[in-house]
Amino acid sequence: MHRRHLLAVGATAVAAGLTSTASAFETGQPGTEPNKAGAEPPKAGSKLPGYVAWKDAEAFTVHSNQTLETKRGLAEGVITPIDRLFIRNNVAPPPESIVADRDAWQVEIAGVAKPATLTVADLKRIGLASVATVLQCSGNGRRYMQDMLQPGQKISGTPWTVGAAGCVIWTGVPLKAVVESLGGPAAGVKFVTGTGGESLPPGLKPRDIVVERSVPLSALDTVILAWGVNGAPIPLAHGGPLRMIVPGYSGVNNIKYVKTVALTEAETDAKIQATSYRMHGVGEKAAPSQPSVWEQPVRSWIDAPLTGMSAGRTVVSGVAFGGLHAVAQVEVTADGGKTWTRAPFVGPDLGPYAWRVFALPIDLGPGTHVLASRATDAAGNIQPDSTPPNGGGYSYNGWRGPAITVEIG
Amino acid sequence: MHRRHLLAVGATAVAAGLTSTASAFETGQPGTEPNKAGAEPPKAGSKLPGYVAWKDAEAFTVHSNQTLETKRGLAEGVITPIDRLFIRNNVAPPPESIVADRDAWQVEIAGVAKPATLTVADLKRIGLASVATVLQCSGNGRRYMQDMLQPGQKISGTPWTVGAAGCVIWTGVPLKAVVESLGGPAAGVKFVTGTGGESLPPGLKPRDIVVERSVPLSALDTVILAWGVNGAPIPLAHGGPLRMIVPGYSGVNNIKYVKTVALTEAETDAKIQATSYRMHGVGEKAAPSQPSVWEQPVRSWIDAPLTGMSAGRTVVSGVAFGGLHAVAQVEVTADGGKTWTRAPFVGPDLGPYAWRVFALPIDLGPGTHVLASRATDAAGNIQPDSTPPNGGGYSYNGWRGPAITVEIG
Repeated sequence: MHRRHLLAVGATAVAAGLTSTASAFETGQPGTEPNKAGAEPPKAGSKLPGYVAWKDAEAFTVHSNQTLETKRGLAEGVITPIDRLFIRNNVAPPPESIVADRDAWQVEIAGVAKPATLTVADLKRIGLASVATVLQCSGNGRRYMQDMLQPGQKISGTPWTVGAAGCVIWTGVPLKAVVESLGGPAAGVKFVTGTGGESLPPGLKPRDIVVERSVPLSALDTVILAWGVNGAPIPLAHGGPLRMIVPGYSGVNNIKYVKTVALTEAETDAKIQATSYRMHGVGEKAAPSQPSVWEQPVRSWIDAPLTGMSAGRTVVSGVAFGGLHAVAQVEVTADGGKTWTRAPFVGPDLGPYAWRVFALPIDLGPGTHVLASRATDAAGNIQPDSTPPNGGGYSYNGWRGPAITVEIG
Repeated sequence: MHRRHLLAVGATAVAAGLTSTASAFETGQPGTEPNKAGAEPPKAGSKLPGYVAWKDAEAFTVHSNQTLETKRGLAEGVITPIDRLFIRNNVAPPPESIVADRDAWQVEIAGVAKPATLTVADLKRIGLASVATVLQCSGNGRRYMQDMLQPGQKISGTPWTVGAAGCVIWTGVPLKAVVESLGGPAAGVKFVTGTGGESLPPGLKPRDIVVERSVPLSALDTVILAWGVNGAPIPLAHGGPLRMIVPGYSGVNNIKYVKTVALTEAETDAKIQATSYRMHGVGEKAAPSQPSVWEQPVRSWIDAPLTGMSAGRTVVSGVAFGGLHAVAQVEVTADGGKTWTRAPFVGPDLGPYAWRVFALPIDLGPGTHVLASRATDAAGNIQPDSTPPNGGGYSYNGWRGPAITVEIG
């Protein structure tokens, strides 16, 4: 077999010295250093922040103490190990003490016929459900939008490429079963509103800081209140002891350390809902009238090959997922989008909210090849060539951003 | 709600002071101390043997340096985290150096038209597959057989209950694709024979020690040569850099650090195949004419509740799986087998070789309740009441052994 030394480079290699432009929300408020939390013994010699020192340090690009991106190619399986799952906190996590007795954590259930405060132990007596979801930061892929800006334009926020996403399996109780056990929804409710248990830093308006998000009531059919992930208790850094999981919705809607779940008539007026995570133009002001960042759009990317290729046969593989609609098919191009070949899915199908792994063996000769993938969901939505920048840098799902340019010399 | 203090005890509580009767195979040979291997940084203060110090120490009952059992109830999800997966080695693992450059590991492929030695990097260019399997020690449940023995009878081996099993997702290349790339099987072959890469201790006959197992050629359709598990490289302790996975077959057939995969006309004459892992009567000698421990029988057990119950509603949950036939249904009893109620499966179906989680909400009043589960596979095989003891203590699949007696006072 004829093999030559090859050079593969990402199509959008990170510019040297780029400074993160993460917002206050993304870096944590002043005075709120991350707690030494996690309830897991740290790995010896970890370079990660203390509350995630139990994670695989080699797996991350650390943008800040509150924003850790999984390196590309290191979350390529159908399941992402927890120690490789990205981290992104709006507010620093609560103290480790809240996971000392997980079953004792209390959550208030409101907007039902018989409102009640239940412990996790109570929830475990109501029902059991499990769902695999792609957990993805709303800003995953922001970097590709930042790269498209005109002079004078700016999009704040962590320059994620593809690594603010993972696929994990949650275990908990269906919210619907909890609501039914409390007499059903109150009249007139239209949203499911979850409130996080973060300790709010003093000196700031609580409504400006509280992590409280509303999603449409239709999510009541799929939301679970989860105490487990990938077969173990949810680490504090990922929202344990209890997290509200909204399958198909982007990360911010999945409330960590959830302390209140309310069925409400209106969306919350918390800043994180009212004027953050809204779809608006670059440089425009966010407003409650704009679409909220809820459902994830159909998306895919290649995890291999990324580098070190030689001429001949290679296996192009990656992950593909929809939001509320399962991914239906994925195609691969090796010529920058001129021609596409359908790629088979491989391995287990974990359900409509999970990602699927695809793999296509192809033969590549000497020259420059631009590899990319393009997914279509069950509703017929297909990834666009690119996604026009928006003010928050949300919901990028173009196939061109994460394309890989391979030089076979 | 009326709640009383309750006492829950396992139906077969471990006798105080029980001495492990593990064989030489199970404890490692004299002079072969486990290597400080694993290529993962240890968790601070771990009480586990060095080569698995990165695991969750709280999750295990340590029978010996080479036999660690996952505590019941701690592998209850559809996926078992690697740091909670049981350990059972026939021979101590090779040195950590073999995972320093995983892609360079070599495996010899024999019994094909064009025999070849391939690196893991070569395998990655041939194809990609992923399969979820229950990895289970052939002796999982041996303890229940040991408890049934008559005076004077003995079954050697680790007294596993239900914790020598986990469900994980492997990533690798289909063996069939590798064989096809090498011209297909040689004439007359009837078995797939894998040889492990353990360093054999000096002073013993290699054929008595080598981990080399043969499975029927029909397995060629499903075997994968795996480099990943649960989305990360296979830890050395679990067979990395390359493990031969035989879906539906018990643990010993899944060759760690596989260095040779041969299609062969006959079963290997290695002791571990010829006169170990054979089905024979208690006190009888093992012989090649007896059935080999290959396919796993249909099995299930309850993971919750195990303890700390109170009267009223509870959710009975557990796992159920077949061997080569997927599990089709599972039933739960609360009265020691007098009456059975079908329990729904919950969460993702990872495929025919994985286990499924089941959960049934039931109401229990004061009194003594014997909880158990009974699974049926797609071929109609149903778990028996109990499994008669055999000489090796293999393949227990009765429902009564792992039954849980709950006293609600």
